[in-house]
Amino acid sequence: MEFRLIDRIHARTAQVREDVRLGIGDDAALLAVPAGQELAVAIDTLVEGVHFPHGTAPADIGWKALAVNLSDLAAMGATPAWALLALTLPELPAAAQAARVDGLADGFAQLAQAYGVALVGGDTTRGPFTLSVAVHGFVPPGQALRRDGARAGDLVFVTGTLGDAAAGLQRLAPSTDPDEEKRRGFLRARLNRPQPRVAAGLSLRGRASACIDVSDGLLADLGHLCTASAVGAEIEVERLPLSSALLGSCDEAAAHDYALAGGDDYELCFTVPPALAGEVQADLARLGCGATRIGRIVEAPGVRVCGTEGEWLTPARRGWDHFADDAAR
Amino acid sequence: MEFRLIDRIHARTAQVREDVRLGIGDDAALLAVPAGQELAVAIDTLVEGVHFPHGTAPADIGWKALAVNLSDLAAMGATPAWALLALTLPELPAAAQAARVDGLADGFAQLAQAYGVALVGGDTTRGPFTLSVAVHGFVPPGQALRRDGARAGDLVFVTGTLGDAAAGLQRLAPSTDPDEEKRRGFLRARLNRPQPRVAAGLSLRGRASACIDVSDGLLADLGHLCTASAVGAEIEVERLPLSSALLGSCDEAAAHDYALAGGDDYELCFTVPPALAGEVQADLARLGCGATRIGRIVEAPGVRVCGTEGEWLTPARRGWDHFADDAAR
Repeated sequence: MEFRLIDRIHARTAQVREDVRLGIGDDAALLAVPAGQELAVAIDTLVEGVHFPHGTAPADIGWKALAVNLSDLAAMGATPAWALLALTLPELPAAAQAARVDGLADGFAQLAQAYGVALVGGDTTRGPFTLSVAVHGFVPPGQALRRDGARAGDLVFVTGTLGDAAAGLQRLAPSTDPDEEKRRGFLRARLNRPQPRVAAGLSLRGRASACIDVSDGLLADLGHLCTASAVGAEIEVERLPLSSALLGSCDEAAAHDYALAGGDDYELCFTVPPALAGEVQADLARLGCGATRIGRIVEAPGVRVCGTEGEWLTPARRGWDHFADDAAR
Repeated sequence: MEFRLIDRIHARTAQVREDVRLGIGDDAALLAVPAGQELAVAIDTLVEGVHFPHGTAPADIGWKALAVNLSDLAAMGATPAWALLALTLPELPAAAQAARVDGLADGFAQLAQAYGVALVGGDTTRGPFTLSVAVHGFVPPGQALRRDGARAGDLVFVTGTLGDAAAGLQRLAPSTDPDEEKRRGFLRARLNRPQPRVAAGLSLRGRASACIDVSDGLLADLGHLCTASAVGAEIEVERLPLSSALLGSCDEAAAHDYALAGGDDYELCFTVPPALAGEVQADLARLGCGATRIGRIVEAPGVRVCGTEGEWLTPARRGWDHFADDAAR
């Protein structure tokens, strides 16, 4: 079955790249990294019931499995190139299984084609529904965006808006109010079809002092960046970029909670020296994702959140922890 | 939890390689492929209850998760370099979880160190017990061992012995007979601690016309090689290399069945033109794994098995299919 499943996926994700010397069908793929480039590699797993709710459309799952990995490459400023897919599926009647596999492959392929990513290898096994994707990209030596370069005085930015995906997860049921349903549709799309900020990551190369993608929640991920850089950060809650869909579907306090601690945003959180802030922001605006300044890097460790009255807040949650938190999903 | 688990694994698998420019701890690892080498990449998943029985020692699972992937690199004639590990674990009390993670890491690290493989990235999530490992190795352009180069007249070889792992899976319980228990220990070790034939794969570069590793069973995997090469093969059952432990623990017919259709051997099955057979065999003997000629490549498609009286056999099973075969494990 391994071979037929992978063939089925491969047929729907065919992406011709000259640097793929031997693709799917042998014991390993053979690939040529361009001369003078470093290879950026990452792996991420999605588990049914943990990273996506039961009943999620297969095409959304296929998209997201690749998107969360491309987001890791984006956060490094790498150009995506190749992917491997390890797919574990429970038994289903043949027709239902084929429909599921085709759906997964279609969603995966849609995003892969958008970024010219070739699926070069895979493995399919029977078992609980999980997908592990490994991605490979290129970056010129010394130009990768790392977590450890933030310095006190740098400004903290995020792309796009925050909190939408976490709010979408709480609003999976359709609403009878057409306006509310429109908002929910937007929030669910942010949950199910995250847009990896690849172009933003490339634009930040050589300019951002540090970068991370927001997968576990802003406070958690900015905390990782600060720890790696041996600095701290102060965030102003009223600067958090919030979508109108989010603001329309809950009160402001809940929106702030989603934005600070909600996972699955897959926006980039990055730091830049103040002198570069204007040009970086203008470039990201031209790319369509925009970037909002939300705070600054300080010497004292930890991430602190400043409220609308200038007071320090104590957020109820710091972030998502898929592994420890039984109730989160 | 993701970070602590991966740190724990990383601490036990630290392997210094100059080509790892940035290892675990950022959104992606940064790696330098040596100039003039192609990159060989593969991914394989192990699922509890499918690829290893419940109750398997964590160190054996960690070893095997890397071994089955290094076997893919061996089958390409690639030199192993880097690995990514995506680990999904069900909840356990903290002490038991730590013991399991440490066991997994120890087994993984033992094999990684033997081959100088650096763990450069990972992901840990909560969910059903599965491990996906992606491996990366190097091979000079044009020298990889592929599946599609076998030609009629080539001789078919396998390294080591066949059928031990499948027999070991059927003999997990200890025996009260010390001789039988010694045999079972050998067979179980072949199941739990497969030795990837990396040195054999390197030795075969530029000489074997085709190569595959025996993971699903000889008939199935040789069948894949033949399909890729648009040829067929004839195997002589009495030439199958069988260990004394296997022969001592079952009758000859069962031993042949294990050797022909048993999975998890992780030996290399390869083809060579007759003129090179002697020197290839001598070189593999010097490497300690040995290689046995078991048949030859023919023009007619399919894999046929010739019995001890010269008759054509119809094997009961063709191989393991983890995905389709509910009862196999």
